[in-house]
Amino acid sequence: MTIVPDLLGYIAATLTTSSFLPQAIHTIKTRDTQSLSLGMYSLFTSGVLCWLIYGIVIDNQAIIIANAITFILAASILACKNL
Amino acid sequence: MTIVPDLLGYIAATLTTSSFLPQAIHTIKTRDTQSLSLGMYSLFTSGVLCWLIYGIVIDNQAIIIANAITFILAASILACKNL
Repeated sequence: MTIVPDLLGYIAATLTTSSFLPQAIHTIKTRDTQSLSLGMYSLFTSGVLCWLIYGIVIDNQAIIIANAITFILAASILACKNL
Repeated sequence: MTIVPDLLGYIAATLTTSSFLPQAIHTIKTRDTQSLSLGMYSLFTSGVLCWLIYGIVIDNQAIIIANAITFILAASILACKNL
């Protein structure tokens, strides 16, 4: 009975984490950040950093891995927006 | 001992959920979606929908509320990108 929710959770985590890869590639390639919200990427990157610390505190490897990857991608997009 | 991680989790969830609000406002106002990646918003919106179903299946109200809000915001941005 726990296989279905576990599988759903892994699919969800894979989708939301990997989604920032096409945006990071698009932004790094084009350097176009006009329609990206600075507010969004500031809040989001801070939030993902909190998730990462949360994962370390509760010692949950899935949360640590997913948020470490998302943090690198979101921080790269934020850096392009600020440069 | 659980207050610190719980608080961190709530801060993290609030930041990552609310971050899509400035992007949604920015996108709806300007209708400029040039630098937004269609791949990102397609994957992300699908992922958030999976998180929402996951929350319903495991009956976790925090996951349901956070992802219902994020889904509305991400889907609005995706709709602007496609229109």
